[in-house]
Amino acid sequence: MTLIEIARKGQITPEMKTVAQSEGVDVQKVRTLLADGRLVILKSATRDVVPVGIGELMRTKINTNVGTSIDFVDMEEEIKKALVAVKHGADTVMDLSTGGNLDIIRRRILSEVSVPVGSVPIYQAAQNPDMSVDDMFNAVRKHASDGIDFMTIHAGVTLSAVEHLKKRQRILDVVSRGGAFMVAWMMQHEQENPFYAEYDYLLEIAREYDVTISLGDGMRPGCISDAGDAPELMEVVTLGELVRKARSEGVQTIAEGPGHVPLNDVRASVMAMKRLTDYAPLYLLGPLVTDIGPGYDHMIGAIGGAVAGMYGVDFLCMVSPAEHVALPTVEDIKEGTIVTKIAAHIADLTRDGQKDRARTWDDKMAHARKNLDWKAQFNLAIDPEKARKIQHDRKSSSDACSMCGELCAIKIMRDALRDKL
Amino acid sequence: MTLIEIARKGQITPEMKTVAQSEGVDVQKVRTLLADGRLVILKSATRDVVPVGIGELMRTKINTNVGTSIDFVDMEEEIKKALVAVKHGADTVMDLSTGGNLDIIRRRILSEVSVPVGSVPIYQAAQNPDMSVDDMFNAVRKHASDGIDFMTIHAGVTLSAVEHLKKRQRILDVVSRGGAFMVAWMMQHEQENPFYAEYDYLLEIAREYDVTISLGDGMRPGCISDAGDAPELMEVVTLGELVRKARSEGVQTIAEGPGHVPLNDVRASVMAMKRLTDYAPLYLLGPLVTDIGPGYDHMIGAIGGAVAGMYGVDFLCMVSPAEHVALPTVEDIKEGTIVTKIAAHIADLTRDGQKDRARTWDDKMAHARKNLDWKAQFNLAIDPEKARKIQHDRKSSSDACSMCGELCAIKIMRDALRDKL
Repeated sequence: MTLIEIARKGQITPEMKTVAQSEGVDVQKVRTLLADGRLVILKSATRDVVPVGIGELMRTKINTNVGTSIDFVDMEEEIKKALVAVKHGADTVMDLSTGGNLDIIRRRILSEVSVPVGSVPIYQAAQNPDMSVDDMFNAVRKHASDGIDFMTIHAGVTLSAVEHLKKRQRILDVVSRGGAFMVAWMMQHEQENPFYAEYDYLLEIAREYDVTISLGDGMRPGCISDAGDAPELMEVVTLGELVRKARSEGVQTIAEGPGHVPLNDVRASVMAMKRLTDYAPLYLLGPLVTDIGPGYDHMIGAIGGAVAGMYGVDFLCMVSPAEHVALPTVEDIKEGTIVTKIAAHIADLTRDGQKDRARTWDDKMAHARKNLDWKAQFNLAIDPEKARKIQHDRKSSSDACSMCGELCAIKIMRDALRDKL
Repeated sequence: MTLIEIARKGQITPEMKTVAQSEGVDVQKVRTLLADGRLVILKSATRDVVPVGIGELMRTKINTNVGTSIDFVDMEEEIKKALVAVKHGADTVMDLSTGGNLDIIRRRILSEVSVPVGSVPIYQAAQNPDMSVDDMFNAVRKHASDGIDFMTIHAGVTLSAVEHLKKRQRILDVVSRGGAFMVAWMMQHEQENPFYAEYDYLLEIAREYDVTISLGDGMRPGCISDAGDAPELMEVVTLGELVRKARSEGVQTIAEGPGHVPLNDVRASVMAMKRLTDYAPLYLLGPLVTDIGPGYDHMIGAIGGAVAGMYGVDFLCMVSPAEHVALPTVEDIKEGTIVTKIAAHIADLTRDGQKDRARTWDDKMAHARKNLDWKAQFNLAIDPEKARKIQHDRKSSSDACSMCGELCAIKIMRDALRDKL
């Protein structure tokens, strides 16, 4: 039986207990949300990894993508990225490698990191320029049997979605790599997407290994102008069908979302996706709320992500500073992960079931500031090393910081209020 | 006559024309909004500077703070910061110097930069440890006669606000430097805030030079836990009275706001401030939507600022990466300014009167991406130098970027759709 099936039978597993404890949520609540598909617990049946809960009442989780590209194949560097990401708070890591020996890289990442690992099997299948249906499903099975905990499958990119794409004339047609592989394959073969047409077979494999299926949004908009259009929403409707089908087969699912969305559409976009997918855990890339900031897309994604998190998104994918421009470096991964983690925490400060716990961190920092206790401030900082370095490079001669020195408002107030408050 | 009085008489000045043209807004609309106090035009009567409009229907503006501290007095570095800020899109610069010869520094900044300059005269008055009422007003007059275009005056920090502060037991009492000066002075002298008690005199000086008064929020919360409490809202009510009084005397005003606010309170906070201040242009520092990110407060401020801008804030103050930790470096000012500019643009994409114009920038970038036109992408980027460097350091062997190389979704789609769409 899969986790979701056990939950439906009313039984509690160690995975549910671990999640309940780490999230501070009652285990029966975890069980019912899991049974309803409103939260997933990422953990392959074949892998020994601390299970991670994603969905309602859970902390907002973040994923960091790593992986080689055709131009840069350096496995050790990708391992370093994965470890740096986990060190700085990534709850999961996805291996998106497309260059080099993908089996070796994937297995190394699985053995090196302590968190659930995701992948996109179509990237491996597409290494064969004449990719067959078998290649697709063989890649899925191989990743599952290797112990991959969740995998992105672009099953919502259907012939019907492609028809909508043709009608609409977007600026940027398809910007999802997996989505583009599927569209190109379907157009070349004049045939339905195999992951859609043979979705039952996909679910069989997922069931066997208790892999969570993350339903990819291959039609996600690639710029502000394309946001919220027919191809995108058509795909979300399909993802809803696929979520229901998977649930009925005992397979856990996540729904993926855009992409590029103007800030004032984020709320409506999140709510529509949640409703149409029967409140499956929602996983967003960004959203990027403007197109004009290459080099700063991690921050632009954090702006969209914090707001999306506030409105109910459960899982944020890190966007790196190199997005749209280059394969990220280790340093890019570090910065992108930290910024995404900040966005998740900002969302948690507003999130049902988590806001009180999240607030204790901020309150500790506020007290440390009031006490001008720098050691505590640095220890509480999301990136102690960076905060410490900034201060060290410009040290004040007073016990305040060099922004104000002796004119520090906190110091002035301490003197003014002494014995008065 | 001051600009606001001329506008009320139905007359159009060159300043109104300049603002109307640069904002793409009808000049009669600019005139009526100015007459109503819903927008201000920053330009001292004594200074030759391109006027900047801030308020309804205008682009979201950003300010960058520069200035010495007691620990670091290096005028040339502060000038560099001011110039870097303007280069990267600061619409205004404020000189917050507290160390060294403040007259010389202020006058140098006024002569070096091409944008409206603001200041906080109380910082100069407080250089006298026995600051008198005359010191305060003399500083105001000196700054005004030097050509300062707008100045922050903490006139809302009243004895009554201090009483609320005493009742409430915040974690961080007062974190505004100017606010702390005023509270300390009032407690020491057991006397009302002179800028409140003799507000008419302040307005006389402002009127004489047509200086815009930016009503400081000395009681702004200094941490998430203190957000939206009685001392803060009490002060906003006072600021509303002060706005109305200033308007009746022909003086332009801006209202300042917090500070630290959880993300889900930003909307209510902005709307309350706008309503209570009769829709005066609203100027926010941040807001910082979490306390746990020293080193990343520029991004945290950008998250709060973009959302606040979406809900009607008109003017965003840059927060530097060194906030809470040290006096910023030139590099900090550059990064903080760019990130704040991005937040302002994200807000503009949602903003009445500006969203269509703002969108054209994003659309150009989308087309450049579709065409894999890297030269255009870099030229359109908010920071061309950074984007170019990231790509240069990890160049792809293909005409796509090294993230995907030949597997670029745009390239795949171009091949797939050739002659088909």
